[in-house]
Amino acid sequence: MANPIYLGVVGVGGVGNAFLEQLGKLPNAPQIGLLARSSQSLLAPTPAYSPCIPATNWSDAAATPSLIKASILSPDEIAAYLAAAPGRAILVDNTSDLVLAQAYPVFLKNGVSVVTANKKGFSSDISLWNDIFASANQGNAYVHHQCTVGGTLPVLSTLRDLIATGDEITRIEGVLSGTLSLLLGEFMPAFGTPDVKWSSLVAHAREAGETEPDPRDDLNGLDFARKLTIIARVIGLEISRPDAFPVESLIPTELVSLQFSSEGIAQFMRQLPAYDDRMEIIKEDAREKGKILRYIGSIDVATKTIKVGLQHVEKNSPIANLKGSQIVSIHTKRYSATPLILQGGGGGGEITAMGLMADLLKVIEKLR
Amino acid sequence: MANPIYLGVVGVGGVGNAFLEQLGKLPNAPQIGLLARSSQSLLAPTPAYSPCIPATNWSDAAATPSLIKASILSPDEIAAYLAAAPGRAILVDNTSDLVLAQAYPVFLKNGVSVVTANKKGFSSDISLWNDIFASANQGNAYVHHQCTVGGTLPVLSTLRDLIATGDEITRIEGVLSGTLSLLLGEFMPAFGTPDVKWSSLVAHAREAGETEPDPRDDLNGLDFARKLTIIARVIGLEISRPDAFPVESLIPTELVSLQFSSEGIAQFMRQLPAYDDRMEIIKEDAREKGKILRYIGSIDVATKTIKVGLQHVEKNSPIANLKGSQIVSIHTKRYSATPLILQGGGGGGEITAMGLMADLLKVIEKLR
Repeated sequence: MANPIYLGVVGVGGVGNAFLEQLGKLPNAPQIGLLARSSQSLLAPTPAYSPCIPATNWSDAAATPSLIKASILSPDEIAAYLAAAPGRAILVDNTSDLVLAQAYPVFLKNGVSVVTANKKGFSSDISLWNDIFASANQGNAYVHHQCTVGGTLPVLSTLRDLIATGDEITRIEGVLSGTLSLLLGEFMPAFGTPDVKWSSLVAHAREAGETEPDPRDDLNGLDFARKLTIIARVIGLEISRPDAFPVESLIPTELVSLQFSSEGIAQFMRQLPAYDDRMEIIKEDAREKGKILRYIGSIDVATKTIKVGLQHVEKNSPIANLKGSQIVSIHTKRYSATPLILQGGGGGGEITAMGLMADLLKVIEKLR
Repeated sequence: MANPIYLGVVGVGGVGNAFLEQLGKLPNAPQIGLLARSSQSLLAPTPAYSPCIPATNWSDAAATPSLIKASILSPDEIAAYLAAAPGRAILVDNTSDLVLAQAYPVFLKNGVSVVTANKKGFSSDISLWNDIFASANQGNAYVHHQCTVGGTLPVLSTLRDLIATGDEITRIEGVLSGTLSLLLGEFMPAFGTPDVKWSSLVAHAREAGETEPDPRDDLNGLDFARKLTIIARVIGLEISRPDAFPVESLIPTELVSLQFSSEGIAQFMRQLPAYDDRMEIIKEDAREKGKILRYIGSIDVATKTIKVGLQHVEKNSPIANLKGSQIVSIHTKRYSATPLILQGGGGGGEITAMGLMADLLKVIEKLR
């Protein structure tokens, strides 16, 4: 009774491997028709798209003799292969690749649904966003990207439910970076007075694997701004690009010209302590006012004001009491007295893969 | 291309009217084939099930001359009418009626999906729960009851996503009563030291419409226990009934024999101040230990320990800082470091109707 469903899984890094592991344990899992990484692709033989690819790690899958081994496939080639499958197909994009994201419209127009945590397709130029959703309509396909924002927190689905049922979002504020949540939470806890220098906290977090390999990718606020862009677009604001609104970088201006290399990272980490006084002054200012310092994104719908940066919050607010969690606080016409709050651990490969899987299960339910 | 969908809407009280109002504003809304309240029913004429019933208030709908007016229909009659519609049908149950809930299996077996905020079907005997979900499978129909717990907070869908993707829930704790959240938040705020007597707070909340008409329906914890029962069952625990675990009532034992009448309510409110000292002692005990008193439900999965009642929490925990909101805190294998937290305003007719509508839209998407 169920239509056969074929997956094209692109990207087998941390998220991709966790996804494949979860897929392997799923009852009635859909078949994998295509598995691709940056240098190589595996395909189930046409025209039957059978035998399919086992849901396991890359090297085990690659050892299956009946599969076709190909070099790198272009997004268009992947889309053509999946669209020709003898059933409905779904692209699972585990990369953060803009080029693949730019091809989503090709997949969707040809009836291939898209499930992804890749923010690029939804936070780049607004024309790509519009093209993606118009193509999904045209191809009668689905695009689910819940975990582009807030890990597995149901942020986007909750916003879509609120809007679909006629509520009006008035204001959203949130902490959309687990790393910045952790750093600010340690730099200025809501209660207690630890006094650790900013640069030491950054160094510690980096050593513990709590930052990106290059911590500047967290500190510049751009990833955070991409997530806020996606939220803003989901609630109907036409944000042209993720740099179309003010984003406060925590990288000292004197250090922005350092190279994006391991030598550049090392120089950055060496020189950061020289700017600790600046962060102390900002913290002292908050303390004098009886407030707590946090790195926050906010959207005020009426004035269309969007910004990302350091802000003062009340000591006993949920945002002040975060310790590494992400949080999104949604104020609406119906939720006017107290906001709707979603809060949780955020990212990590296993958790992101779980969000992808939840999206995948929803698309499968619609396609079957 | 879309299959026609027929709704049977039962119950036109606060939630029902808010639901009909939202339905009237919905683009491409499904047709209403049947609208029923406790004393009367309206039906679109068979066999065409057309013209349908306008999504408006009862008296306007009843004034439509082409509709069939009937007296009270039994659940079986409603199910038979909806199952014979020339398309897929959905029962929207806006009541809190156990008899209607006991008939969900009849609806579902006959292919009629169910969308409801009525807790009775999911929190009564476990045999009804099992029958409901087995019947849904059998009839290829859907049963969505997200807003039986936590208003529009996506509690149940988040739990189902976590489980479907292979995560393991270890512990859940929450405040599932907006009224008790408000009362305890005022009785013992996390910060500041207002000192208002418990009975005054109850009286105030009742006057402000923040309690059920009979405040004992909040204070006895039974509604809370029903919600916790539903959560426990969704995560796979076989809870035979909502009184199968300890539920602490905030009604003084001396007052439990008062009648369930308006005279009984009045007597209860008059006599409650005599027991304020007991609540003061409980509060003082928490204060001495540096903790905050809250009315909490908790599920420990490993030991299968479920309980509802007063507990001590840390001052700067999210639960201590609630002011009338509901909250659910979910600890899992993957969310081991910090729990996933959902927090929000909770109930009210308009918000519950919105939750129903969100569920309805999901069922429609699956049926079309």
